[in-house]
Amino acid sequence: MLNILLCGCFGKMGQIVTEMLHERSDLTLIGVDVMPPKQQPDFPVFRSFDEINIKSDVIIDFSHHTMINALLDYVERTKIPAVICTTGLDETILARIREVSKSVALLHSGNMSLGINLLLKLVQKAAEVLSQTFDVEIVERHHNKKLDSPSGTAFMLANAINEELNNSKTFTYGRHGKDTLRKKEEIGIHAVRGGTIVGEHSVIFAGVDEVIEINHRATSRRVFGTGAIKAAEFLVLQQPGLYSMDDVLK
Amino acid sequence: MLNILLCGCFGKMGQIVTEMLHERSDLTLIGVDVMPPKQQPDFPVFRSFDEINIKSDVIIDFSHHTMINALLDYVERTKIPAVICTTGLDETILARIREVSKSVALLHSGNMSLGINLLLKLVQKAAEVLSQTFDVEIVERHHNKKLDSPSGTAFMLANAINEELNNSKTFTYGRHGKDTLRKKEEIGIHAVRGGTIVGEHSVIFAGVDEVIEINHRATSRRVFGTGAIKAAEFLVLQQPGLYSMDDVLK
Amino acid sequence: MLNILLCGCFGKMGQIVTEMLHERSDLTLIGVDVMPPKQQPDFPVFRSFDEINIKSDVIIDFSHHTMINALLDYVERTKIPAVICTTGLDETILARIREVSKSVALLHSGNMSLGINLLLKLVQKAAEVLSQTFDVEIVERHHNKKLDSPSGTAFMLANAINEELNNSKTFTYGRHGKDTLRKKEEIGIHAVRGGTIVGEHSVIFAGVDEVIEINHRATSRRVFGTGAIKAAEFLVLQQPGLYSMDDVLK
Amino acid sequence: MLNILLCGCFGKMGQIVTEMLHERSDLTLIGVDVMPPKQQPDFPVFRSFDEINIKSDVIIDFSHHTMINALLDYVERTKIPAVICTTGLDETILARIREVSKSVALLHSGNMSLGINLLLKLVQKAAEVLSQTFDVEIVERHHNKKLDSPSGTAFMLANAINEELNNSKTFTYGRHGKDTLRKKEEIGIHAVRGGTIVGEHSVIFAGVDEVIEINHRATSRRVFGTGAIKAAEFLVLQQPGLYSMDDVLK
Repeated sequence: MLNILLCGCFGKMGQIVTEMLHERSDLTLIGVDVMPPKQQPDFPVFRSFDEINIKSDVIIDFSHHTMINALLDYVERTKIPAVICTTGLDETILARIREVSKSVALLHSGNMSLGINLLLKLVQKAAEVLSQTFDVEIVERHHNKKLDSPSGTAFMLANAINEELNNSKTFTYGRHGKDTLRKKEEIGIHAVRGGTIVGEHSVIFAGVDEVIEINHRATSRRVFGTGAIKAAEFLVLQQPGLYSMDDVLK
Repeated sequence: MLNILLCGCFGKMGQIVTEMLHERSDLTLIGVDVMPPKQQPDFPVFRSFDEINIKSDVIIDFSHHTMINALLDYVERTKIPAVICTTGLDETILARIREVSKSVALLHSGNMSLGINLLLKLVQKAAEVLSQTFDVEIVERHHNKKLDSPSGTAFMLANAINEELNNSKTFTYGRHGKDTLRKKEEIGIHAVRGGTIVGEHSVIFAGVDEVIEINHRATSRRVFGTGAIKAAEFLVLQQPGLYSMDDVLK
Repeated sequence: MLNILLCGCFGKMGQIVTEMLHERSDLTLIGVDVMPPKQQPDFPVFRSFDEINIKSDVIIDFSHHTMINALLDYVERTKIPAVICTTGLDETILARIREVSKSVALLHSGNMSLGINLLLKLVQKAAEVLSQTFDVEIVERHHNKKLDSPSGTAFMLANAINEELNNSKTFTYGRHGKDTLRKKEEIGIHAVRGGTIVGEHSVIFAGVDEVIEINHRATSRRVFGTGAIKAAEFLVLQQPGLYSMDDVLK
Repeated sequence: MLNILLCGCFGKMGQIVTEMLHERSDLTLIGVDVMPPKQQPDFPVFRSFDEINIKSDVIIDFSHHTMINALLDYVERTKIPAVICTTGLDETILARIREVSKSVALLHSGNMSLGINLLLKLVQKAAEVLSQTFDVEIVERHHNKKLDSPSGTAFMLANAINEELNNSKTFTYGRHGKDTLRKKEEIGIHAVRGGTIVGEHSVIFAGVDEVIEINHRATSRRVFGTGAIKAAEFLVLQQPGLYSMDDVLK
């Protein structure tokens, strides 16, 4: 029986993870959030880390970048391993995460989906084998409310491929004109926007008379919750250190 | 038994159509081309329209825009119907085609593939029904030697949709940045380039929790030959006038 | 302001439609259901048609085939138009629907999604144009809990194509062996099952060197609610008669 | 400068490889074939292995299973490495290949495409990571003249996945009926047939709210030639032993 402390339990992802944990009889839950709940929670929730008086085995964090310093204070004090899923962290916070991980097991990832993390591994393998004779392009699709383009995950994919190929690639974000001949070193990254599409990423390796395409499609944010819970179950068994979803997949 | 006069019979498409006509026992072939042949042809070929001394029933033209005036002179003189597949014609030539079509049956199209012409009809129907609540995006894929982006066919598709929607749409050719929120009136057109891909066009209608996608994929230039031959068989039965592939599909 | 009577308001689809109607300020809601609610509803709900004492403008029915006779009694008495979305109706009930529609506007459809109904129209158009030279195959994908294969919608698509082609087609549900040469008249229908896929249908028209593929993908059951509400808004303006989603799309 | 001996040089694949070798200035070619040529070859061709009087560095074989014993006699005598691309070999021949490979470098594969061999590696990796919570299905597409279903490559993929999962899987070739609930251990393999499709294979991993799909599409048989030539360049540098395309990809 694992007791999980969920930071940001009243946020969008917090509510999803709460619901998923309720479906698991082998996991219990306490929460922490500075926000007021929409409805009375049926599990213990604290307003700050200082008020927490129940012991947990592992932390899942889906809060806000302004909360991470308080979280790391708590982690340093209690040595409870933490899965940090909050995105948009600056270099100062990332440096502190590396520092704190010397004495506690921490995991941080830009995308918690198991599928996306496997996708990263697969495209790196494909890039390694096909790079010399195949062209790489990425097409991602998201809903019409998304502000940034291309998606952070599309950049993760492009960077992973580029790293595999000694950073020899340049990125192109669209082609328009009479003379747009593709350069060998280009990776085209195309951001399709429409409707309520949750998230699709397609990496295309196009060669002479053959194409390999690796595609990931998410239909709900629950995929991030599944990955976070799996990461928590992994982390509770680890020595201090900084881990990634890559380690969970191994 | 139909006798077809093939203009530009030694060009890339001319050779393909020659091969396809040889497979048909109900069609015979004469050719005209100013270029020298790579190997001795096994059918009568003339160096200019003036030299042609065999009667044909219908003309298929895959030549060059500089040849079209001579072709139209011949057509005016002989009243032989002509399928004009040559692209890149300027407004002067297009006006003359309209003029000549008053006395001879002519057909001109930017893309001779049956599939692409059906695609045009399907996306117009979909645009008519879905326009209010669905977002439209187009993704096309071609080989890494293609100079222009997006493809002429992608523009044909976008224009057909726009026409259906009272020209209320604007076109976007890529998205990159922190604040690229999609406007309702946008049609995103994305040009993927890689390997030897002959040509793919995908029109995406994305709504609330559902997506309709209509896709066409060509794997050889033979599709243009198939369409041209089908158009010739159609045209030989028509009254004078200017026809399009749309009429062939009806 | 339209007042909608929702039959089966506590069922799975009933709850979804309730939620969607709550988002619309121009629509009000009363319900009828023989089942007890999971939580106290915030709109008037009646236990039977006899108890209803509030006037509604149009009925949306997502109940159970055993409820339809009582619904039709109520409709005959009140002349309120009804969108009947319940599936699995036998020939006796269908005959009564046709009878009652002589004096009230009724709409009945096997699939309420706007996208699926457009898909039906598109594949019929494609079949009409391509039938002679293209082969048709259908691939559908659903979650791993689905009992029947292929899906009812896959059969609707196959039947619509077959009807367009004078019922010349036969259906094949899988190929396995050394000698499975495709017959010209076959339509292969393939049922992929896995994970939590809500529903995908792909109709493939494969010709000489080109393929047209028309694909529909739903990511939630809300698409049926959207279609039902749109149908209700349409039906309230119609004369007595039996309508289909096809009429709503026109 | 590598001199390649091409067995079966007048067959379908032999002609394709001949054309591809002619495009390479760093490779020369001699041929062997018992069949008469369609047109006079512009390279030395012998009617049997006994007549060959020019030294080659490596052999590419696209002949016929009845030729392999004569090929292995020649290989044993000359110690020239050989890439054996002929399929449909029985166990006796396969045993002899293993025996001969003790003294000469040999490579044998059921599919010479680089893309397909990479696909095999990728799906094995995905199966290893996702097997517990994802369902696996395979959809392949081929032209309407193909006799056997599913394709040999689809079986290679299914077997590779099954091997990774301790042979716990069973194969299903279609679903049709009211009660076709998917069993956890099933791999559905679906054979779509139509038009002139050269070959597509799609492996689908469907989980909770996410799907990973790995797809390979070939548009000409040249992909087998590319792989065979790459294998020959690899094999010429190896010690005696039996190799596979997997080794070439490493």
